[in-house]
Amino acid sequence: MTDIEIAQQAEIKPITEIGAKVGLTADDLELYGKYKAKIEMATIQKLQEQKFGKLILVTSINPTPAGEGKSTITIGLADALNRLGKKTVIALREPSLGPVMGIKGGATGGGYAQVLPMEDINLHFTGDMHAITTANNALAALLDNHIHQGNELNIDVRRIIWKRVVDLNDRELRQVVVGLGGPVQGVPRQDGFDITVASEIMAILCLATDIDNLKERLGNIVVGYTYQRKPVYVRDLQVQGALALLLKDALKPNLVQTIEGTPAFVHGGPFANIAHGCNSIMASRLALQLGDYAVTEAGFGADLGAEKFLDIKVPRLGKSPDAIVIVATIRALKMHGGVKKDQLEAENIPAVARGFANLERHIENMQSYNVPVVVAINEFVTDTQGEFEQLEALCQKLGVTVKRASVWANGGAGGEELAQAVVEATATADEKSFHPLYQADASLEEKIRTVVQKIYHGADVHFAKKAQTQLQTFAKEGWDQLPVCMAKTQYSFSDDPNALGAPEGFTIAIRELAPKLGAGFIVALTGDVMTMPGLPKKPAALKMDIDEAGNAVGLF
Amino acid sequence: MTDIEIAQQAEIKPITEIGAKVGLTADDLELYGKYKAKIEMATIQKLQEQKFGKLILVTSINPTPAGEGKSTITIGLADALNRLGKKTVIALREPSLGPVMGIKGGATGGGYAQVLPMEDINLHFTGDMHAITTANNALAALLDNHIHQGNELNIDVRRIIWKRVVDLNDRELRQVVVGLGGPVQGVPRQDGFDITVASEIMAILCLATDIDNLKERLGNIVVGYTYQRKPVYVRDLQVQGALALLLKDALKPNLVQTIEGTPAFVHGGPFANIAHGCNSIMASRLALQLGDYAVTEAGFGADLGAEKFLDIKVPRLGKSPDAIVIVATIRALKMHGGVKKDQLEAENIPAVARGFANLERHIENMQSYNVPVVVAINEFVTDTQGEFEQLEALCQKLGVTVKRASVWANGGAGGEELAQAVVEATATADEKSFHPLYQADASLEEKIRTVVQKIYHGADVHFAKKAQTQLQTFAKEGWDQLPVCMAKTQYSFSDDPNALGAPEGFTIAIRELAPKLGAGFIVALTGDVMTMPGLPKKPAALKMDIDEAGNAVGLF
Repeated sequence: MTDIEIAQQAEIKPITEIGAKVGLTADDLELYGKYKAKIEMATIQKLQEQKFGKLILVTSINPTPAGEGKSTITIGLADALNRLGKKTVIALREPSLGPVMGIKGGATGGGYAQVLPMEDINLHFTGDMHAITTANNALAALLDNHIHQGNELNIDVRRIIWKRVVDLNDRELRQVVVGLGGPVQGVPRQDGFDITVASEIMAILCLATDIDNLKERLGNIVVGYTYQRKPVYVRDLQVQGALALLLKDALKPNLVQTIEGTPAFVHGGPFANIAHGCNSIMASRLALQLGDYAVTEAGFGADLGAEKFLDIKVPRLGKSPDAIVIVATIRALKMHGGVKKDQLEAENIPAVARGFANLERHIENMQSYNVPVVVAINEFVTDTQGEFEQLEALCQKLGVTVKRASVWANGGAGGEELAQAVVEATATADEKSFHPLYQADASLEEKIRTVVQKIYHGADVHFAKKAQTQLQTFAKEGWDQLPVCMAKTQYSFSDDPNALGAPEGFTIAIRELAPKLGAGFIVALTGDVMTMPGLPKKPAALKMDIDEAGNAVGLF
Repeated sequence: MTDIEIAQQAEIKPITEIGAKVGLTADDLELYGKYKAKIEMATIQKLQEQKFGKLILVTSINPTPAGEGKSTITIGLADALNRLGKKTVIALREPSLGPVMGIKGGATGGGYAQVLPMEDINLHFTGDMHAITTANNALAALLDNHIHQGNELNIDVRRIIWKRVVDLNDRELRQVVVGLGGPVQGVPRQDGFDITVASEIMAILCLATDIDNLKERLGNIVVGYTYQRKPVYVRDLQVQGALALLLKDALKPNLVQTIEGTPAFVHGGPFANIAHGCNSIMASRLALQLGDYAVTEAGFGADLGAEKFLDIKVPRLGKSPDAIVIVATIRALKMHGGVKKDQLEAENIPAVARGFANLERHIENMQSYNVPVVVAINEFVTDTQGEFEQLEALCQKLGVTVKRASVWANGGAGGEELAQAVVEATATADEKSFHPLYQADASLEEKIRTVVQKIYHGADVHFAKKAQTQLQTFAKEGWDQLPVCMAKTQYSFSDDPNALGAPEGFTIAIRELAPKLGAGFIVALTGDVMTMPGLPKKPAALKMDIDEAGNAVGLF
């Protein structure tokens, strides 16, 4: 059966029943249909003093086309924890329509480890993405209108850094010229569109702690520079109130359920290669407040999503993980060990051993934060006992527990051993000894070098001329107190997507920095990471449809 | 008190209670919070055989900056009908964010004649606009991707007519160049963005009768032409299923309530100057099936919205109006009579008589369809008894009832006389004698000339060279069986927005035709009607905000 068939046959419960499991009443929920709800702001305020449960962060090796199934493990692990009698709540990102229509078809777990209703979550859900798109583009329209109407702020149209967005893969919009057609049609200038999940407003929504904090962050966005090279903030345009108004519902976390009825907050969705890659702080807090265990996920490999979770999100969340689960598959390890995609079916124990280099580096990286690590192998039918034993032996050498999980095929029942190991790991955690990668008062250059050397294991960093100039001007503006958010390919520790395994001796090229003062970090753009994906030759959209009763077809 | 203050102090009832008034149970409703709901598709199918109630169409004179209050009268009239014991349901368009953020601040009636929750309806509501924006732009991305990936359909990139949209006033996007940056970034071409309400997909959503019809209409959209000048349809791209999937929830009408608890379907929102200007057929049908009386509105003046309602929507709805209410104000009549905006406070009976020419022509136009007409005067405190008596005398000469309504100040209680007159008018209606303006088999040129001569009272039509060529090619394609949808300024019968009153002897210039095969009409573009508005120097957004509890501020 396909994922959507399993999802449509699952017995979904009214969301009020799911809320009741963690003490939420009908008054705490703003229903969006019978199976989705937003949490009322009053409830969020009421829970503010509630003690946090334990935090489990799920991350992975560098992704390969073989697939790792990180969301699947996150969901299955939480279901398994609930089976073991541990009150567990999930916090996940919401999917972006761009990849759903392009390649993925869906991003809500797989098999018997899915969140429901998968069709809604994969499509418009409760409208958060659309609210972000609209707020982002309203700001762009208001900014261009300010210039058109006389440009009182003296904004240099060549130095506008605020781009418009769509929640689609649309390469045609990467580089555009806008404002053509003469004086009544705006001001001509070069521009470009990003995908919505790359919008700073997405990052802001995910890092905001309440409405006031949201508004303050929106006001802090830098949209460009004056002819005197002074930054122009949203607060100079006086539109942070209007943007906050557009985001008032999007700010509230969404509650849904897994196939096994585990409560899941699905809220916010920045990509981890171009943004900070984790769900909202407000959703994570709710999961921690309502569950004895909260399981959450960081995007792509641990070099991207987990690093950002630990260095950007943790200080603002006020809670570090009690355990980190690194997801891998035997197939993906074999790819890191040099096996081609069409050769993955055959047993290949030496390739597992070679590919382990990638996993090993992620394990050591995560351990360097002083958080207990568990490895989870997402089982495939082609895995052999010999391959797993090889992996087990290698993990044992590092003193790390590794467990197989068959949650795709068996739901929570397939993840109980993993869950048990994770519970044991959290018992050894000591939050006070959490060890961040860098200190806030280090310079931006130092922070970037630290990430490259300690996490990527690169030999050097090369700053392009533009980036060098920016390091100086950003320091003058006082922006170097902020953490860095690396924009890098997800496929490799390096900035070369083809360098699998555990590459050494490479240099990371920083071509440009992007100030995200609202989000509160500085993005460092490496290589040619794209902030607007394209569609493949045969987009997933070609198979999508609805039947006469209005049911979704072709999401998978 | 401002509109938003009145709305926020109103006692809003759970939407399930409102539904129950017209026999809808909780199972018929898909809740969006406590006060908004979509109607389930199964319910819509169940009601298909239900008999229609009487249909009341509210339209107006040509709008002026003095304001007419058509939505206010529509809502107040329905409240009044319910007070008279007539089971009445409203069908209205949903507001577009562009004007809300720009000038209007809100579009949900006014004073004590409003639909609630006004903040939600004016902002993201149930996400219909965003779904339309997304489907529109997904089609654009899929189209450009087709060309980028090899252009199997041989599409001439200079003859693409499908534009992207945003639900914002963003003049900067009117004329753009996309696809810059070299071979991996798409194909360079001239392009432009429209506002979402101008999207053909908006018109399709409003004219679709069910899911299959929606899909068929989406497949019929013409996106451009091949190098051999053959039309390229969405069905050639095979993405109508994906677009329908993106619209599956947006297709379901939204139920809300007036301040007095009248059920109101608010669904779909094309502008009447650039599109057909009425709410969805599915919402109108529900209002007719659930109410003994259904009150609905057509955008702008009767020359635009009502003409399109009667010639485009009625044949597809399968029901003509039992009465047409033409809304005017004494102030607006004075402006049509030549009074400047700052002189409107002073009594000016001769100006009312002069301005009556505008109203008179609309009355005669509407009567030409063989539908009973009632004139409604939306009261202002500056109106004098002498001015109203002048108007009354002029209406009497035409044999038309005119009633004052103070629904803004008094809600339904202020509209009872009007409601009584409307009920009496509907009793005289004879649906069989409904007289459409033109026959389907007339040529496009004939249809356009008929609208200009019979409705606008223009002397002639001038077709630009491009439009002349199109008349020929469209006839060859067999598209001349379709109705015409005029794109014209709302301020005048002519294409000159400054020609108020009842201008004569003018020529309407048709610069271009736009085939909307999915919507099922041909748009005739006159003058310089814009499909993307701009923001004013001080946009309404500057006053918008949310308070700490998350309540909207600055919508009015």
